[in-house]
Amino acid sequence: MPKSLLVVGSIALDTLRTPFGEAKDELGGAATFFSVASSFFVPVRLVGVVGEDFPKAFNNVFASRNIDTAGLVVVPGGKTFRWHGSYQGAMNEAKTEHVALNVLGDFRPAIPRSFRDSQLVFLANGSPVTQASVLDQVEKPELVVADTMNLWIETQKDALLALLARVDGLVLNEGEARMLTGQHNLILAGRKILALGPKFVVIKKGEHGSLLVTRPNDRQDAGPTQNVCPLPAYPATEVRDPTGAGDSFAGGMMGYLASAGQYDFQHLIRAMAYGTVAASFAIEDFGLRRFGRLSIDEIDRRLREYHDMLTF
Amino acid sequence: MPKSLLVVGSIALDTLRTPFGEAKDELGGAATFFSVASSFFVPVRLVGVVGEDFPKAFNNVFASRNIDTAGLVVVPGGKTFRWHGSYQGAMNEAKTEHVALNVLGDFRPAIPRSFRDSQLVFLANGSPVTQASVLDQVEKPELVVADTMNLWIETQKDALLALLARVDGLVLNEGEARMLTGQHNLILAGRKILALGPKFVVIKKGEHGSLLVTRPNDRQDAGPTQNVCPLPAYPATEVRDPTGAGDSFAGGMMGYLASAGQYDFQHLIRAMAYGTVAASFAIEDFGLRRFGRLSIDEIDRRLREYHDMLTF
Repeated sequence: MPKSLLVVGSIALDTLRTPFGEAKDELGGAATFFSVASSFFVPVRLVGVVGEDFPKAFNNVFASRNIDTAGLVVVPGGKTFRWHGSYQGAMNEAKTEHVALNVLGDFRPAIPRSFRDSQLVFLANGSPVTQASVLDQVEKPELVVADTMNLWIETQKDALLALLARVDGLVLNEGEARMLTGQHNLILAGRKILALGPKFVVIKKGEHGSLLVTRPNDRQDAGPTQNVCPLPAYPATEVRDPTGAGDSFAGGMMGYLASAGQYDFQHLIRAMAYGTVAASFAIEDFGLRRFGRLSIDEIDRRLREYHDMLTF
Repeated sequence: MPKSLLVVGSIALDTLRTPFGEAKDELGGAATFFSVASSFFVPVRLVGVVGEDFPKAFNNVFASRNIDTAGLVVVPGGKTFRWHGSYQGAMNEAKTEHVALNVLGDFRPAIPRSFRDSQLVFLANGSPVTQASVLDQVEKPELVVADTMNLWIETQKDALLALLARVDGLVLNEGEARMLTGQHNLILAGRKILALGPKFVVIKKGEHGSLLVTRPNDRQDAGPTQNVCPLPAYPATEVRDPTGAGDSFAGGMMGYLASAGQYDFQHLIRAMAYGTVAASFAIEDFGLRRFGRLSIDEIDRRLREYHDMLTF
């Protein structure tokens, strides 16, 4: 029986420039990528905010993907959060050209009554104070996973540490893991984060894949490193727009966990594999376009390919 | 029935400084790491050169590991190749403090008659002209794999291209693959290298693992990417000295291939996994010290752990 999955975070209109072209006011945002990616696995509950300028057509994207938008607030007269970014060369890093928080700046997420019994909760990147306020409104979640970023590590470290004591898992990229812990070795950085509260950490390494670090003895036959799992990225030759790869990864991961309803080491690894595959589709086209023509069969086929690749 | 394995390359006395300590005149060199790592799988034939100053005790290292030194030349009055290197911080890159080629500078490898029927040949990093001269002396090898480096790509590109047309496989690091092909995406870089002659390329990415690229349809059920395999590095928390990791990787890989006697896609992946494990041991202590107290059982145990880690 699949579990209920709630995501709270940003919904954006992105203007993008990559070596493969440009896109203006493309549907984007962390919660958007997350909800669309996870919706291939389970129905998803979305909480976010947009302005009156949010195109009607984009609501159809959510509707067509079985995403419950009861928590989507439209601010009258408000403008949707906008991000302008560009990528050059190998597209390893986004350059932020311009940001306008708009309605996201005053966003105080109110969780609809019908969402409060959510079993899995994903706190997409946002202020740790806002993330904590979401947890205050959710009744008895089984699995809470948060994302964060360098901005919050630098400016709201205490609030972030308080949040970490309340979550089961943290997803962040390698630079953020090092910044948060002062530890270069990512396994040791992951273990330092576990000491702050979470039961598991997933460190995203972009084109180099991801690393799962859990507490020792989560597995009965655990050897010295069997609480650690590195997975490579899916080998991609067609990368048009990396925007949303990390949130799609988290979406695939949490979507699979919600569908499986189990969160042990073995299920976490499989969840990371689904996250890896979800991210590999996201980057093949601008914004969410690739997801618009994707099926769960394609996801499963690529997962099998990825699985076979790693079988020796 | 295991195949015969020949390696030709440098033997060095390394002086090393890492955050974990120092070592002077430590046994090193590409052919040394390769031969010791591969000797856990099959008997190995070594061709190299040292000076009269080469410590007798180091000959015992070869003897104790079933390495045939019939091709090891001792130059009377000569001095052994010396490399002084240091690593800082995360130890991702060696800094060369000093190099003295000594007897390696005039090395024109002569392959002993008893080695000329070698079935597998590894041309450790060296001038492509010297590497080609080795191939001229080997009768009918089944599998020839070469390593190379930026120096030869920059200074002897024509000779390197001529060599690539004569080898079955190339092992090189990611920076070198990009330099050789002008292609940032490593899968595309690997495919460009395949167009130069080799049937497979292994691109080493250090702490990020390795990438195998082969020609399409090496596998009957090959999907769009089933001629590509990324493997993560074995997750290591105790890295004392990264020297020789790449050559130990190649040694584990070729040693396994020689023991298996088959070189198809599935065997290449398994060979890379053994290479990954061999490298993970090499970096745990200075020079070859960790190999001195290593058993094939330990290698197999870690391979199983690595295998289980990647099984979802």
